[in-house]
Amino acid sequence: MTTPVIPVAPPLKDELDIVIPTIRNLDFLEMWRPFFQPYHLIIVQDGDPTKIIKVPEGFDYELYNRNDINRILGPKASCISFKDSACRCFGFMISKKKYIYTIDDDCFVAKDPTGKDINALQQHIHNLLTPSTPFFFNTLYDPYREGADFVRGYPFSMREGVPTAISHGLWLNIPDYDAPTQLVKPRERNTRYVDAVMTIPKRTIFPMCGMNLGFDRELIGPAMYFGLMGDGQPIGRYDDMWAGWCAKVICDHLSLGVKTGLPYIWHSKASNPFVNLKKEYKGIYWQEEIIPFFQSVTFSKESTTVQKCYIELSKMVKEKLSPVDPYFQKLADAMLTWIEAWEELNSPAKSAPAANADTKKK
Amino acid sequence: MTTPVIPVAPPLKDELDIVIPTIRNLDFLEMWRPFFQPYHLIIVQDGDPTKIIKVPEGFDYELYNRNDINRILGPKASCISFKDSACRCFGFMISKKKYIYTIDDDCFVAKDPTGKDINALQQHIHNLLTPSTPFFFNTLYDPYREGADFVRGYPFSMREGVPTAISHGLWLNIPDYDAPTQLVKPRERNTRYVDAVMTIPKRTIFPMCGMNLGFDRELIGPAMYFGLMGDGQPIGRYDDMWAGWCAKVICDHLSLGVKTGLPYIWHSKASNPFVNLKKEYKGIYWQEEIIPFFQSVTFSKESTTVQKCYIELSKMVKEKLSPVDPYFQKLADAMLTWIEAWEELNSPAKSAPAANADTKKK
Repeated sequence: MTTPVIPVAPPLKDELDIVIPTIRNLDFLEMWRPFFQPYHLIIVQDGDPTKIIKVPEGFDYELYNRNDINRILGPKASCISFKDSACRCFGFMISKKKYIYTIDDDCFVAKDPTGKDINALQQHIHNLLTPSTPFFFNTLYDPYREGADFVRGYPFSMREGVPTAISHGLWLNIPDYDAPTQLVKPRERNTRYVDAVMTIPKRTIFPMCGMNLGFDRELIGPAMYFGLMGDGQPIGRYDDMWAGWCAKVICDHLSLGVKTGLPYIWHSKASNPFVNLKKEYKGIYWQEEIIPFFQSVTFSKESTTVQKCYIELSKMVKEKLSPVDPYFQKLADAMLTWIEAWEELNSPAKSAPAANADTKKK
Repeated sequence: MTTPVIPVAPPLKDELDIVIPTIRNLDFLEMWRPFFQPYHLIIVQDGDPTKIIKVPEGFDYELYNRNDINRILGPKASCISFKDSACRCFGFMISKKKYIYTIDDDCFVAKDPTGKDINALQQHIHNLLTPSTPFFFNTLYDPYREGADFVRGYPFSMREGVPTAISHGLWLNIPDYDAPTQLVKPRERNTRYVDAVMTIPKRTIFPMCGMNLGFDRELIGPAMYFGLMGDGQPIGRYDDMWAGWCAKVICDHLSLGVKTGLPYIWHSKASNPFVNLKKEYKGIYWQEEIIPFFQSVTFSKESTTVQKCYIELSKMVKEKLSPVDPYFQKLADAMLTWIEAWEELNSPAKSAPAANADTKKK
């Protein structure tokens, strides 16, 4: 078995931003230094904007706090959540790169079964740069991996695959459980290293976690909106789920791939299950109606871009989910605001400098 | 991490038959003795019925050759393939047990990464006795496994799962490749042990390999027909694929689960790729039309049993696939014959002894 060739220069060094939402000093970056230092970081500071976030020496970064977001987006800043890691999606929007990797600040470098440090970013890049196979299931997992292929019975016409839009990584140690499961299994740790990457089949939606996530911003960026969570909202901890549901149905419509599996990061500590329960409880019953909704979403033929799909989706959300709770009306409006803001910051006419002018640069 | 509790008595000892199609002496059973000896074997002898197949001492078995099949099924024996491992499905039909495990005679005991012999049968039983989760994707794989659970965002209403009908195991060493891939990658070996079992999502069909396969005969048995292959047929090596496509769409309709992943067996030698190419080549282009056909199959509400679904499916095959090749007309008829034979052998009125009377019993 050979492992994928490791290029001498860091892969995609000038085409990828690492987005980190945080409320604290970024000491966790020390452990990631060998892997992250060549890349540019976009730090989205949540909570009190007067607080100073310390970033370890030697990292190339820009940092945005709430004041920056308000100044850059003006009234459209209302679509960016506050006091919730959902704020990270501002980083997706302000980036000018083709690829994004986003990670939580309580995630550390995990080790593979041989004891070697896992370069999570490199694996995400590998996942994103190789095709996905959403139309048929390959029982030997990722057919593009060294030492693997398509098995007998896999249609040859489907072996080219489709471009990969999303690479969803996993977590060793603290698993990503909801509050009820945390309460019931406080001591459960994920110790199983499953050495696989796989495409999530078409028409299958999945719980996307934002803790360790890579994506192709050009392919799916405008769908990576983390919704209205946290301060002033009736719900939290569904930001990444929302983005995952929306992004997956749009990927299915546009024939883009979503992978899950490797790489693992080491998730260091469980958040407070009592606090989580308060944030989640509406989501826990709303999702019983949201999931069937997403399972039945179909887009019109006119929706040929992510933006068009997202606008069409916002209308469906307003129509079908508002009866569940008025919150979804507000969310549907915020989805439109998000797209407007995205286009404002990302249209060829209005280039980046103006938006970035006042941000702190190393 | 604890492993699942191992019962002192072999699990399902009186409820499971091991079905082995073969043309040679079954020396391979020696290696399986610690795991298989407590179970009953059904050996389906393919090819020349005058040849004597030696079975190692101490195994409890019944053996059927072509003469036995012809005598037991009469004119309906036409649905059982000859000179092809597809003949194994006769063993599924003649069994009176609730569960089947079927394995090829070139498959040996594999080792897990710690060097321990893998009891493949025990893992299949575990897979079959725990539910499946076809309606939503769990990123940490089998949520019922010790040390795992449903992740955040997994709808609670779906956590009970559904009964598991099929457990599809994998292969270390020689991967299950088609002839073209064998020809292109003659030296490729599967050395990657992926420590996972997962449910194949609803509406996703997959390439089911018959080499290392467990299923619940009561839940899905009548759909486990391996088609018309080999002697006198224009195609081979699509027997298990056919069964897998049919069984999966029926499982989806009846809300039954299909799992894939663990356990691994050690597949000792690759079959001849030139011979395989001759057997496969029609299948390789037919499947380009067969797969879209199966992806679009929907059953009527009246099809509430596997048998009814299978009969409805045979009509769809006749209608939609006969234009591809007249072979599918013959296959559709054989599907009906298979169901008739299944019902004859398995109806409560006609009990087992008559059918089994003349078979060789240890």
